[in-house]
Amino acid sequence: MEPTGMGKGRVEAFSDGVIAIIVTIMILELRTPSEPTLRALLKIAPSFLSYLLSFLVVAIMWVNHHHFMHAAREVSARLLWLNMNLLFWMSLVPFVTDFMGKNHSQPFPVALYGLDLACCSVSFLLLRAELVRQCRDLPELAEYHSKVLRKNAFSLFLYLLSAALAYIRVEVAYTIFIMVAASYFLPEKRLAESAG
Amino acid sequence: MEPTGMGKGRVEAFSDGVIAIIVTIMILELRTPSEPTLRALLKIAPSFLSYLLSFLVVAIMWVNHHHFMHAAREVSARLLWLNMNLLFWMSLVPFVTDFMGKNHSQPFPVALYGLDLACCSVSFLLLRAELVRQCRDLPELAEYHSKVLRKNAFSLFLYLLSAALAYIRVEVAYTIFIMVAASYFLPEKRLAESAG
Amino acid sequence: MEPTGMGKGRVEAFSDGVIAIIVTIMILELRTPSEPTLRALLKIAPSFLSYLLSFLVVAIMWVNHHHFMHAAREVSARLLWLNMNLLFWMSLVPFVTDFMGKNHSQPFPVALYGLDLACCSVSFLLLRAELVRQCRDLPELAEYHSKVLRKNAFSLFLYLLSAALAYIRVEVAYTIFIMVAASYFLPEKRLAESAG
Amino acid sequence: MEPTGMGKGRVEAFSDGVIAIIVTIMILELRTPSEPTLRALLKIAPSFLSYLLSFLVVAIMWVNHHHFMHAAREVSARLLWLNMNLLFWMSLVPFVTDFMGKNHSQPFPVALYGLDLACCSVSFLLLRAELVRQCRDLPELAEYHSKVLRKNAFSLFLYLLSAALAYIRVEVAYTIFIMVAASYFLPEKRLAESAG
Repeated sequence: MEPTGMGKGRVEAFSDGVIAIIVTIMILELRTPSEPTLRALLKIAPSFLSYLLSFLVVAIMWVNHHHFMHAAREVSARLLWLNMNLLFWMSLVPFVTDFMGKNHSQPFPVALYGLDLACCSVSFLLLRAELVRQCRDLPELAEYHSKVLRKNAFSLFLYLLSAALAYIRVEVAYTIFIMVAASYFLPEKRLAESAG
Repeated sequence: MEPTGMGKGRVEAFSDGVIAIIVTIMILELRTPSEPTLRALLKIAPSFLSYLLSFLVVAIMWVNHHHFMHAAREVSARLLWLNMNLLFWMSLVPFVTDFMGKNHSQPFPVALYGLDLACCSVSFLLLRAELVRQCRDLPELAEYHSKVLRKNAFSLFLYLLSAALAYIRVEVAYTIFIMVAASYFLPEKRLAESAG
Repeated sequence: MEPTGMGKGRVEAFSDGVIAIIVTIMILELRTPSEPTLRALLKIAPSFLSYLLSFLVVAIMWVNHHHFMHAAREVSARLLWLNMNLLFWMSLVPFVTDFMGKNHSQPFPVALYGLDLACCSVSFLLLRAELVRQCRDLPELAEYHSKVLRKNAFSLFLYLLSAALAYIRVEVAYTIFIMVAASYFLPEKRLAESAG
Repeated sequence: MEPTGMGKGRVEAFSDGVIAIIVTIMILELRTPSEPTLRALLKIAPSFLSYLLSFLVVAIMWVNHHHFMHAAREVSARLLWLNMNLLFWMSLVPFVTDFMGKNHSQPFPVALYGLDLACCSVSFLLLRAELVRQCRDLPELAEYHSKVLRKNAFSLFLYLLSAALAYIRVEVAYTIFIMVAASYFLPEKRLAESAG
């Protein structure tokens, strides 16, 4: 693909900045309780748990983004804009987190949260497909990226499933969100081990 | 012109920081719907579309800013302050985006959005003129920068036009916004190809 | 432990970004007085003092974080996620600061502030324990990190104490917050001297 | 002068991050007009002008901060904390800007704005005094830093004067703010020339 003459460093720096802001401004949505009591604080527990989940999800995405950029061979124009596409969907996380936190037992906001994460998964998938393309001449690497891509596709499927199942029971959707996060966690470690 | 002894790296880092914040804080303006329904969400669709447009516009500006800094030979005092001037007008994007999103069918906020983008174009134009000046002794480069400058001038003209036409039909202004964004997209690719 | 292939630089850059945002967005919680008088301004003095304390506390954490990363030999997966854990608890500082500032004479928000700082201390402690583990083969360094770890444990104890004592007199808790901050200050200097 | 073992790069990066956020979040305080008319927009003109002034003031501080860090020979513990002190007073700029913008004809908020800028000047003065100390063995450099220090002291005097004169006529204070900003501008250029 066409190189843009843009260093990976600057794309990483910009992405880091955007992701750092995304993960931090969510706390601004967490309004302090109106009364200085535990009872009042517990009322915002769902918002707090939404924040905790999103912090974890965005942190995982940041780690994956790093591994991704590390593997990229050049910043093609396509990679640059696919990265912008990912940042856009990630930038919606504070919005859907706040919406879900305030309406934690309603299917629609929970499904919307799942849909935004599904869009993030699609974005990662497209980025990974670009890597596979960049590595056409290196069958082993291309094979590796294809494997990660299939894992991305499975997460995408689970997020879409969670959006649908939220209309049956929101608890099922929450369980899927936590399970996908947990599943990303462990392989990352194994990946690191195999690389060590 | 006078070098400031300031490395390009730090100007880039500061600009990256400011642009990353601009692109991300816009989501804070997107208030979650009062009710957990699709109907309530659709009411903020204009705000969402404004955000999407501005995300794209600011992302394009960031890419152009990178190409610009890459081409700069030194951080003269003039370049430093012309860059600050650009960041100032870019920093107003969240404001005009929010204003337009909340009053999407009113000519004044739409025209104001166009005017702010026009100011950003003027800022880019002034920065590019500084590059032409820096390259006086390299006719080929100066010629290249003059060409980009003319493209900037055309965007400026279109943004001013959109501000005027918003008073006839806001849809025309929206169409111009999208077309300018699309036009920046493609040449960037061609530029990259020719550089590859 | 397993190296992640992630450079210390990028973890530092991301952490710097998150901490810079944490320390700065707190000012957004400081609402301007409703009237342009000194009297109205003095009403938000508790919020201002909360902000001042938190600015100091977060600044100290940033300095400690720097020393910590400097000492780390590699970014293991465990270190990476222990760092994310620290950033999470730090990201709650703006929330507990705002809550305490608005209810400065109530034990619950003051205790909650102390508890969040205690969680930050635990996070630093876990990070330090990871360093001790990384340095098992270097008894002198391991000994040094164990010493810092014991200091962390003492801060943790003081923060937990402050949370408990806030229910007797909030002033006692405030005194502990200030004393812990002051105690971190001086040793940092001595540490620097011995390293000089 | 105890060295902290902290690289200038990381202090610059953290300061850049904080300053970039300060300069950008001010726009969040600029609430969009309630009605989509020029008349409604003009009502927030004072807030806009406050923002414009503060953007300029903070941008100048950033440039000065860069020159300062460039001249620093090592990050002593004192320099590190004097820098944090500066960032603290700078972090209050969004607050005093908002307060002044909403009460532009009232002496108190205007005086408070002047006082915060005076505190920033004191902070720069203390940082510069540390540089003079670092350069004791280089009389020429020390002389140069002493000269800049005297210029800082004059700005400090003017800001204090503006705070006092705001109680006679706020316009006088505004004039001083603009004049100090303009005065910083030109010498910076000359400085650059002499360094070129």
